[in-house]
Amino acid sequence: MQKPTGIITITTDFGRIDPYVAIMKGVILAINPSAKVVDITHQVPAGSIQEGATIIKEAYEWFPKGTIHLGVVDPGVGGKRRPILVSVDNHFFVGPDNGLFWPIIELQREIDIIELTEKKYWLTDISSTFHGRDIFAPVSAHLSLKIDPFLFGERISHPTTLDYPIPYETNNELIGHVIRIDRFGNLITNIAEDKLRAFTASKDFVIKVGKIVLIKTSHSYSDTPKGEPLALIGSSNLLEIAINMGRASDYLNEECGYGTKIIVELTQVVRLKVPP
Amino acid sequence: MQKPTGIITITTDFGRIDPYVAIMKGVILAINPSAKVVDITHQVPAGSIQEGATIIKEAYEWFPKGTIHLGVVDPGVGGKRRPILVSVDNHFFVGPDNGLFWPIIELQREIDIIELTEKKYWLTDISSTFHGRDIFAPVSAHLSLKIDPFLFGERISHPTTLDYPIPYETNNELIGHVIRIDRFGNLITNIAEDKLRAFTASKDFVIKVGKIVLIKTSHSYSDTPKGEPLALIGSSNLLEIAINMGRASDYLNEECGYGTKIIVELTQVVRLKVPP
Amino acid sequence: MQKPTGIITITTDFGRIDPYVAIMKGVILAINPSAKVVDITHQVPAGSIQEGATIIKEAYEWFPKGTIHLGVVDPGVGGKRRPILVSVDNHFFVGPDNGLFWPIIELQREIDIIELTEKKYWLTDISSTFHGRDIFAPVSAHLSLKIDPFLFGERISHPTTLDYPIPYETNNELIGHVIRIDRFGNLITNIAEDKLRAFTASKDFVIKVGKIVLIKTSHSYSDTPKGEPLALIGSSNLLEIAINMGRASDYLNEECGYGTKIIVELTQVVRLKVPP
Repeated sequence: MQKPTGIITITTDFGRIDPYVAIMKGVILAINPSAKVVDITHQVPAGSIQEGATIIKEAYEWFPKGTIHLGVVDPGVGGKRRPILVSVDNHFFVGPDNGLFWPIIELQREIDIIELTEKKYWLTDISSTFHGRDIFAPVSAHLSLKIDPFLFGERISHPTTLDYPIPYETNNELIGHVIRIDRFGNLITNIAEDKLRAFTASKDFVIKVGKIVLIKTSHSYSDTPKGEPLALIGSSNLLEIAINMGRASDYLNEECGYGTKIIVELTQVVRLKVPP
Repeated sequence: MQKPTGIITITTDFGRIDPYVAIMKGVILAINPSAKVVDITHQVPAGSIQEGATIIKEAYEWFPKGTIHLGVVDPGVGGKRRPILVSVDNHFFVGPDNGLFWPIIELQREIDIIELTEKKYWLTDISSTFHGRDIFAPVSAHLSLKIDPFLFGERISHPTTLDYPIPYETNNELIGHVIRIDRFGNLITNIAEDKLRAFTASKDFVIKVGKIVLIKTSHSYSDTPKGEPLALIGSSNLLEIAINMGRASDYLNEECGYGTKIIVELTQVVRLKVPP
Repeated sequence: MQKPTGIITITTDFGRIDPYVAIMKGVILAINPSAKVVDITHQVPAGSIQEGATIIKEAYEWFPKGTIHLGVVDPGVGGKRRPILVSVDNHFFVGPDNGLFWPIIELQREIDIIELTEKKYWLTDISSTFHGRDIFAPVSAHLSLKIDPFLFGERISHPTTLDYPIPYETNNELIGHVIRIDRFGNLITNIAEDKLRAFTASKDFVIKVGKIVLIKTSHSYSDTPKGEPLALIGSSNLLEIAINMGRASDYLNEECGYGTKIIVELTQVVRLKVPP
């Protein structure tokens, strides 16, 4: 198992108007003044475990091995869900056992999941509404001091799974979903480059999402005339729908959001010649 | 008096679009490259000393002793208000003497307040619009290098006070106020748990804010059916009005904001039995 | 040439909802775990090189000498524009050669511009959409480890210039432009204090922007009655139009944005005496 470094990332749905994120950082620094805290985002849509899970999975692997990823998208706080620490793929994850880390857990073979039960690593008073401050921040801080993960509680083997959209195939269609709309209005989908290549092989295909129909993928945004929609493999190796110098999400408007279907259809593309 | 650590928090109404906060950090790092700067929030409503004071009071005590809290909500910048350094409750506060630190000052007995007059700890040129950069950031940075607080200026004894809403009682009512609406639309009030318990003792009571009337407090958000309003003691030990998986602030709409009244009324609650 | 310190600033148009900025920080920390990363802003309007350039020029000089400024406003990513490293005025700049650093470059005599060609300082796989992660972040991180700038590639002498608004004079007018609207709705212009003084000498003048006409400059925001417009020299020594306790940008509404003209007109100001 990788040793923790002093780096702790934080992903929440707390926003940056309230002092909640800063309070968690205060708790961390009071335990480990040398900890290096990095914000991933605090703009996960409120209570959306699926979207929080998508962000954490996309970001974590770019950090050095031994990084601790503190995630708090926790609509069930104060209820029965367990607090956990996960050691997987040489990274650590601390947060609620509500599926937030499931997309990372399910892909790996060597995993240790510890239910956080050892209260000496928590704050003294535990509220029923802010375990990010009272449990997850202090546990992350103690872990960053290289406390053995197994001292934080008991090992468990059946973490909570997450039901989230996964691409599937029919006869001549590969059906995926929008999993994030980024700041530029680009639609990031869950169709990986490998999957797309394997499905389409060298056959003709069209890509459909809402009223957009595309007959090829582009190399970069600027490959396509200004204002025109395009499909490309984005920086996370996922199929992405964009408009050069525009916003695909605005163009599709009501028709798109988290979970919107995107269809890759095998079909002969006839390129008409316009008569002179 | 606690020695300053190298941790400096920053709370402002500058937002994060403009480079102002980053410029303050640049000034700090040019004086103390080892300083550790943590943002509390930069989204205090523009010029709202009361809301800035609420945030700083809520956040500061979670940081380690010796932390320096730089606060800039400063509508009177360039006018006659004094720049100050406050040493209280083992923390330091640097900013304008306009009441921003008053809610912390008024609760403590041992306080040192220094008017910042020693210009060798300021930048060379002082603008009339950005003392955060020219005075407060460099003073905080020098203080983080463990310069004796008394070298920054002269001790003063009458800091500017702040007029802000405080709960009061009538015969059968405890009247408090909304002091923050958080990202989830929860209404955070100024009624502390102790105060509520002492007032209600074991008697029946209802809680009223706008069109919401509640007959009990809940333990956690998820205690209540989805979409229903609830009252609970939040993570800062303050009475809070929320809607499970919803936004209380949207539900009340025009009726609520900073200062909105919330009434705890002693009254017999008759629980009707619906006839079969 | 100044040696790089471990401080790296980041300016982008990525926003803070997506994980892109955090991913760049992860890449930096994986190469140099001691790097100190400071956000300038991530709210540059999408693809606006001019506004990104304005922010970087305004902020960089407040950081200590040897700071590395990583800038990613890069609408041409994946196309032909070159990636560069600039050493100028004792600071370093890393990003696309699209004019983003031009306003700093053009003012200085001693400049070294290196086209980034040495791939051993890049990530292994280079996407066509996210050079911030794949080239600029790792180059900045290696540079922060004090790698000699000339090892990153070949020196070039003709960087891409930027066409951006610059004040000009007619007979009796000095014509400048709004270059930033800040969080308070203040209009920051490109007319520097020196320029204004030299142009107006001791003559009478009026300042016009949209429907606002002002006959004098103020010392601070609070100099003017509440709700009234004013002109002052702001914290960056630039002429600024504001409304005391109000928002000049809302008052002018459609009439103002990046590039809006502001006119300083030499004209006799007759101060009427209202008859009794």
